[in-house]
Amino acid sequence: MTELTLAAANTIIVAALGKGTDAKPLTVAVLDAGGHLKALQKQDGASMLRYEIASGKAYGALAVGMGSRWLDQAARERPHFMEGLNAVSGGKIVPVPGGVLIRDQAGKLLGAVGISGDTSDNDELAAIAGIEAAGLKHQAG
Amino acid sequence: MTELTLAAANTIIVAALGKGTDAKPLTVAVLDAGGHLKALQKQDGASMLRYEIASGKAYGALAVGMGSRWLDQAARERPHFMEGLNAVSGGKIVPVPGGVLIRDQAGKLLGAVGISGDTSDNDELAAIAGIEAAGLKHQAG
Amino acid sequence: MTELTLAAANTIIVAALGKGTDAKPLTVAVLDAGGHLKALQKQDGASMLRYEIASGKAYGALAVGMGSRWLDQAARERPHFMEGLNAVSGGKIVPVPGGVLIRDQAGKLLGAVGISGDTSDNDELAAIAGIEAAGLKHQAG
Amino acid sequence: MTELTLAAANTIIVAALGKGTDAKPLTVAVLDAGGHLKALQKQDGASMLRYEIASGKAYGALAVGMGSRWLDQAARERPHFMEGLNAVSGGKIVPVPGGVLIRDQAGKLLGAVGISGDTSDNDELAAIAGIEAAGLKHQAG
Repeated sequence: MTELTLAAANTIIVAALGKGTDAKPLTVAVLDAGGHLKALQKQDGASMLRYEIASGKAYGALAVGMGSRWLDQAARERPHFMEGLNAVSGGKIVPVPGGVLIRDQAGKLLGAVGISGDTSDNDELAAIAGIEAAGLKHQAG
Repeated sequence: MTELTLAAANTIIVAALGKGTDAKPLTVAVLDAGGHLKALQKQDGASMLRYEIASGKAYGALAVGMGSRWLDQAARERPHFMEGLNAVSGGKIVPVPGGVLIRDQAGKLLGAVGISGDTSDNDELAAIAGIEAAGLKHQAG
Repeated sequence: MTELTLAAANTIIVAALGKGTDAKPLTVAVLDAGGHLKALQKQDGASMLRYEIASGKAYGALAVGMGSRWLDQAARERPHFMEGLNAVSGGKIVPVPGGVLIRDQAGKLLGAVGISGDTSDNDELAAIAGIEAAGLKHQAG
Repeated sequence: MTELTLAAANTIIVAALGKGTDAKPLTVAVLDAGGHLKALQKQDGASMLRYEIASGKAYGALAVGMGSRWLDQAARERPHFMEGLNAVSGGKIVPVPGGVLIRDQAGKLLGAVGISGDTSDNDELAAIAGIEAAGLKHQAG
């Protein structure tokens, strides 16, 4: 696979949503390698800005070529770097876990998935489950 | 139905995509009544900013409570009104056909669907087909 | 009166809403002389962006010291001026009738009221009725 | 009640303002469930940006589906998350107490009230008093 297909994106979303619970409705955004939204589903009951948060995790991961867990650590160690990164991105980044890079089996970057709604750790686990269901490789940190 | 469910949004998207052709990949965005993205699918081959265009049609429809075909006409008659509307929206509106309000059978506003990729007229027809597939009412103008 | 009081703003809003009809729910925004929102009411059924539109009329009126009917005319005659004005305002202006300056009996500027929901002409009439109900002077153009 | 009515919003505002003191003029903003302003009153003597602050508390509460007291705590524990959330919201969030979710008796989200002018704790108490006066349920944290 050389590009992220809609079929793969939908597989990722459905599998990721399958990891959620009714008490914590999830929002799952899949971005292509250029940072543009490919597919999204927001479960009923999710709060207002969950798309922006989910997308912000995925966008941040693509921004630096690392899963957003890396951004979370970077933000703790060098907050001024993260502020600058968010500034130059036009305010598109949420630097907490749950944004995971999507690669094909050869390691080529296809895009990223971002999830919000549960704890950041659980969001990340759901993202990984989604990527695995599509037969692709994940990079969370 | 009192709110737009994810199930209904997905039904709208799948039915709308079914109206498209391989030569004209579609992007379908469904927004809730508050203008927040509920679900999106962008077909393979769609150009870079299709999500923003599709969403901009739906957002514009919600802004004024009319399908985006009305905005298209308003923009021709009073371009300064449309420029002002876009300004106060923060640049979120694309005033051409293809943004269609979604109402329940009692007429209550549930959200809007926006489509981009084919001609504006065909985009609108696909939106209507999607809304009808979900058993809901449409308002295109 | 040297400043716009909340009591006066509320009187303006209630009287302006009294001019509306059920079929055309109104949104009435009152801004002080510095362009800052003092009071607002949005009737049930008003579409999503009506506050921004109503406020955009009032803000535009304050921007140039003329009612927004003047802006409407200016936009038709010199669209590049209106685009520039909107740009430097940060995108806060909707240049159509319905934004009316509020002055005290001595002519001192107290603020502006902006209304959206009906035709622009009716919006303006409601604004004038509101200002008169508060015993103040209006400037619509 | 399935949507926030103007009548309920006005009741909330009047009751909340009744908790204030002359020395600390309050600004009370009521947003609907989609984050759009429904009603606002700013008492005489309130400083320039009080509407934006009050609205920013309510918007933040809606963004994550928790009262803004939760945001205040999250900002202390994970400042990079709050900065990211503010970035992706387009700079619309003030993460301190005083933004309180409004729910109907069945728990359905109707909107949020945000108050600024006194201490954050007192702002929150006024918001709660307003919501109770309208016979609705509040969620402050």
